[in-house]
Amino acid sequence: MTTLTPAALVTQLRWRYAVKKFDAARKIPAETWAALEEALVLSPSSYGLQPWRFVVVDDPAVRAKLQPLSWNQAQVTEASHFVVLAARPTTTEADVDAFIQRMCEVRGGTPDALAAYRKMMVGGVVKAMSPELQGHWAGHQVYIALGNFMTAAAALGVDTCPMEGINPAGYDEVLGLPAQGFKTLVACAVGYRSADDKYAAAPKVRYATTEVVRHV
Amino acid sequence: MTTLTPAALVTQLRWRYAVKKFDAARKIPAETWAALEEALVLSPSSYGLQPWRFVVVDDPAVRAKLQPLSWNQAQVTEASHFVVLAARPTTTEADVDAFIQRMCEVRGGTPDALAAYRKMMVGGVVKAMSPELQGHWAGHQVYIALGNFMTAAAALGVDTCPMEGINPAGYDEVLGLPAQGFKTLVACAVGYRSADDKYAAAPKVRYATTEVVRHV
Repeated sequence: MTTLTPAALVTQLRWRYAVKKFDAARKIPAETWAALEEALVLSPSSYGLQPWRFVVVDDPAVRAKLQPLSWNQAQVTEASHFVVLAARPTTTEADVDAFIQRMCEVRGGTPDALAAYRKMMVGGVVKAMSPELQGHWAGHQVYIALGNFMTAAAALGVDTCPMEGINPAGYDEVLGLPAQGFKTLVACAVGYRSADDKYAAAPKVRYATTEVVRHV
Repeated sequence: MTTLTPAALVTQLRWRYAVKKFDAARKIPAETWAALEEALVLSPSSYGLQPWRFVVVDDPAVRAKLQPLSWNQAQVTEASHFVVLAARPTTTEADVDAFIQRMCEVRGGTPDALAAYRKMMVGGVVKAMSPELQGHWAGHQVYIALGNFMTAAAALGVDTCPMEGINPAGYDEVLGLPAQGFKTLVACAVGYRSADDKYAAAPKVRYATTEVVRHV
C-alpha cells in the first residue's frame, strides 16, 4: 500500500491551517473531490451507525444565503467547495433496523443472524441514552467525520477551514434539514488558500507536546 | 510537498477498520509513534484553544486496570499503544489567558496586541456558554482530535480501534485525570492488526454516497 512517511504526515499537518482567504478562482479537481466525499462516507462512527448527513453546497445562491449566517465570513462563498455537517438528533429502533438491513445488503446474510448485534445497538444507544444524550452521541460522531475530513484533505494537499461560528438553526432553515431528520452542527470550507492569506505564514500555536501528551 | 493521491487516500481509508484483534508482538516504531503524537498535538480546535489532554498508557499494569473498565476488550492490553482522550470540562478566562500567553511565546508580541482576540474567545466560549455547553464544546474538539488521529494513523498504515464503550469515571479514577482538570471521553488502541482478525476481511458497511452526501 502507498502511505505517507511519518515526516510527510507531520509536514502536511503543519501545512494545514484554518484558511481565512481562499483562492476563489481555484477549484478542486473532480477526482480529488470524489475522494474527499468518499472520505466523509468512510468516516468511522460508533457501531458503524453513521448518524449523519453531509450537504455539499454547490449553488452560489444558497452559499450567499449561508454567508450572513456565518458572521459574513468570505470562506462560505469563496472556497471551491463548502460542506455542512449535520447530525441525526435521535436514534430509534427503526434507525438500527435500517443499518442492520444495510449490513445484510453489503455483507449478505439475514437480520436474524445479526440479532445479537442489533440488541447491543438498541441497548447501547436507543435504550441507554435519553434523546438528549443521543444528540450528543451523534454530535461526537459528526466531529469524528470533521476531523477525518480535514486530515484527509491535508493528506491530499487540499485546504480547509472548519466553521463552528455559524447559526445552525439558520442553516437548517436554508437547507431544509430538519424535515429530512437532521440538524446542522458545523461547516467546513474546502479549496486552496489564496497566495495573500497572511495567516498561512503565522507559526502554528500549540501547547508543548509534553504538556498535552502525558505518558503513564 | 509529498501528498497521497486521491486513490491512495481512499485505499487507506478503506483499509482502516476498528481492529478487534491486534498483533500483540508488533510494536509501532518510535519515529512513527512520534509522528502520531505530533498529529494529536496538531489537531485543529475551536479558536485553537486545545481543551484536551491525551494520555498514552505505556504501563502494562495500568492497561490491565483499564481493561475491565472497557468491557474486557483485549485491545486495551494487546495493542502496541493505547491513548485516552480527555477533555477540559469547562473553559475559564484563565484558560484563555494561558492560550494568549502561549500565542505570544510562539509568535512574539504582547497580550495587549491580542486583546480583541482574547475578547472574542472570552465572549464566545467563557461567557456565551454555560459550563454544560462548554463541556459539549470541549468534547467536540476532542472528537476532532480522534478523527484526525485515526486518519493520520491510516495514512501511515497504522491500525486503530476507537473505544467509546468504556467507563469514563473508572478511567478518570485510574488515571487521576480530574485532579489535573480533565475528564476521560474516549480511548483509542493503536498498533497492527493480527493476521487472524476475521473482521479485517469483512466488507465495510456504509450507506450509499448518494444517501449520505447531498448536493444543493
